[in-house]
Amino acid sequence: MAQQHLDPTAGPMAGDALAAYLRSQATEFLRALRQHREAGGATGGGPPARARSSVGENGSKEAVDAARALRRSARRISGTLHTFRPLLDEGWSEAMRPELAWLSGALAREHAYGARLERLLTALHRLSGSAAFPAQAASEVRTEVRTEVRADVRTEVRAEVRTEKGTLTVGAAKAGALLERQLTLARTRSHSAALQALGSSRFHAVADNVAVLASEVPLTATAAMTGAASGLKPLAAAAEQRLCDAVTGLPLVTAGHPYNSQALVHGLSADTAPQPQDAPWHQVRLLLRLHRYAREILFGGEALVDVRLLNAGQALDRHRDAAEAAAAAASAARTPRIAPATAYALGVLHADQRHEVEAARFTFQRAWMRETVGTP
Amino acid sequence: MAQQHLDPTAGPMAGDALAAYLRSQATEFLRALRQHREAGGATGGGPPARARSSVGENGSKEAVDAARALRRSARRISGTLHTFRPLLDEGWSEAMRPELAWLSGALAREHAYGARLERLLTALHRLSGSAAFPAQAASEVRTEVRTEVRADVRTEVRAEVRTEKGTLTVGAAKAGALLERQLTLARTRSHSAALQALGSSRFHAVADNVAVLASEVPLTATAAMTGAASGLKPLAAAAEQRLCDAVTGLPLVTAGHPYNSQALVHGLSADTAPQPQDAPWHQVRLLLRLHRYAREILFGGEALVDVRLLNAGQALDRHRDAAEAAAAAASAARTPRIAPATAYALGVLHADQRHEVEAARFTFQRAWMRETVGTP
Repeated sequence: MAQQHLDPTAGPMAGDALAAYLRSQATEFLRALRQHREAGGATGGGPPARARSSVGENGSKEAVDAARALRRSARRISGTLHTFRPLLDEGWSEAMRPELAWLSGALAREHAYGARLERLLTALHRLSGSAAFPAQAASEVRTEVRTEVRADVRTEVRAEVRTEKGTLTVGAAKAGALLERQLTLARTRSHSAALQALGSSRFHAVADNVAVLASEVPLTATAAMTGAASGLKPLAAAAEQRLCDAVTGLPLVTAGHPYNSQALVHGLSADTAPQPQDAPWHQVRLLLRLHRYAREILFGGEALVDVRLLNAGQALDRHRDAAEAAAAAASAARTPRIAPATAYALGVLHADQRHEVEAARFTFQRAWMRETVGTP
Repeated sequence: MAQQHLDPTAGPMAGDALAAYLRSQATEFLRALRQHREAGGATGGGPPARARSSVGENGSKEAVDAARALRRSARRISGTLHTFRPLLDEGWSEAMRPELAWLSGALAREHAYGARLERLLTALHRLSGSAAFPAQAASEVRTEVRTEVRADVRTEVRAEVRTEKGTLTVGAAKAGALLERQLTLARTRSHSAALQALGSSRFHAVADNVAVLASEVPLTATAAMTGAASGLKPLAAAAEQRLCDAVTGLPLVTAGHPYNSQALVHGLSADTAPQPQDAPWHQVRLLLRLHRYAREILFGGEALVDVRLLNAGQALDRHRDAAEAAAAAASAARTPRIAPATAYALGVLHADQRHEVEAARFTFQRAWMRETVGTP
């Protein structure tokens, strides 16, 4: 270290750190792929009906974990190719990135539909006063409200038996069944599509390219001759700057005011497209991820302990998940011939998830502000 | 003042301050009653159909203001009879209070239904992305989101023209029409009931009793012989203590955590009764009012400038209004044969108002904590 300070050119080259990171991610990718095949996840190309039955119940935790690890390394390789592209063979990088994005997308969808269904069903139970409470609720109220809830559940049951009016809980149950039907179907289709993707020649080409990366990273001449600091740092700083610029564009003052009611402003809009107000937040989520990956290259394992960045990133993940869950509830409400009670429950659920969106923005604002204070 | 400090017994008696306050409130009551009659509000006993048409459109601002002033002084007289009952003729006080409560209730209902409808329609417009923004939203976003909203309103209109799917805005409109029908009917009935109450012999007995109060307050012997400080203060302190005890029972730790999701915990419960979790907050609202009135007697006009108490009280008013609006939306959703889109909009609206309930609790928590820090 002391020697490096005295003579920077004798230190590690930019290409060394970059190649080491890409090699480790590529190795991780290939390991996850092997694991996925061993877990029986990639029989690929089989009949969809067979695939469906083999996934839904079996669960195959190994296959799920392997798919997650595959996505994780694919995202990191793709992000690194993007952030440090001047140090890598341009044609090769440019050809590789859309293929990695296609693969990540194909693998992510099944998981996303499953997680969305779980989120919505959990919310339905919470809204019916019969579920676990959010982690942030103080213990003081946990006991209080739980007792209350239990008393109420009894009342509900009685109400349903006695009167014809108490259909809202029936509505919640029907809404849950409808969401389960729709999202399970979407998930099963995504599963088949993922299996087909993993069995395709397009995927084999991606895997071959990753295998190349695991042995020999196609660096430019600059990368091999520039010191790690002067080669990597400006590119990592540029990624951070893109993140900061995007955050500056967010309505953070409003987001920092609790209960600002902004996330539900389009709650009853007829537009079925994703809410335009969410887009800049989703964009920041992606830029934050790129910034995190760039830090992993710069600082290695130590970068992983930046709790503030992790908190901010988790808030944006929650923002994305809640926004998509809210959209799924709204979409289910457009199913023809549903009962009014079902539609009512879906309306409550949609609004609840949009509140989650607002809460996630608030959490991000707090995490981000703390970060910029902490980091000089 | 200096003399009073040297010789407390030479100062004003408890009965003097109490009688002065009750006299002024009684005078205010009689003035408001006269004003209400002059404004044509109290033709009383006329046919309901006639009464309906004469109110809905005419508005009669004078009658509305007079009714509010009547309620205002009735509440203060009733509260004072309660808090300072050891200083007043017991039989007389005990007979008077339920009558004043009956009158306040009869007068309040019409106004409450009107305000509830306005609150719900405003929320529906906001949720359709076509309305004024809440006052607490920072100006930064006001312009931002407004532009966004305008762009979206255009999209909505186009969506409705082009596709058959965009029925949710139709749902919001239908929900608004349904609420307008139901709450206007309830309001009209309350108006008729209020007019009948004001024309009844029961009311004339109340007015006669208030007239007695305006000239001669039925004090006990103690009230006339005890100094203002030693007579009034312990009773006012007891009222404050009842308030503080009730606040201690509130889940303030949770309420102070933004986005704690507690207010919507029963959002889909089948129980049509008011949410049990709201009751302790409503109780604190009433106790806070009694405390404020007691302060008016102790400190006179100066008591009115306690901004913290006013803020806390306003938060609890908002809590009550939002809770009742949420219940009205849920109740409208139980109307037979409504369209699913209408039910969906009512579900979103219900959740939105329950969110307002949660926001009001947060505001109360902040106001109250600030108060207890400020007051030694």
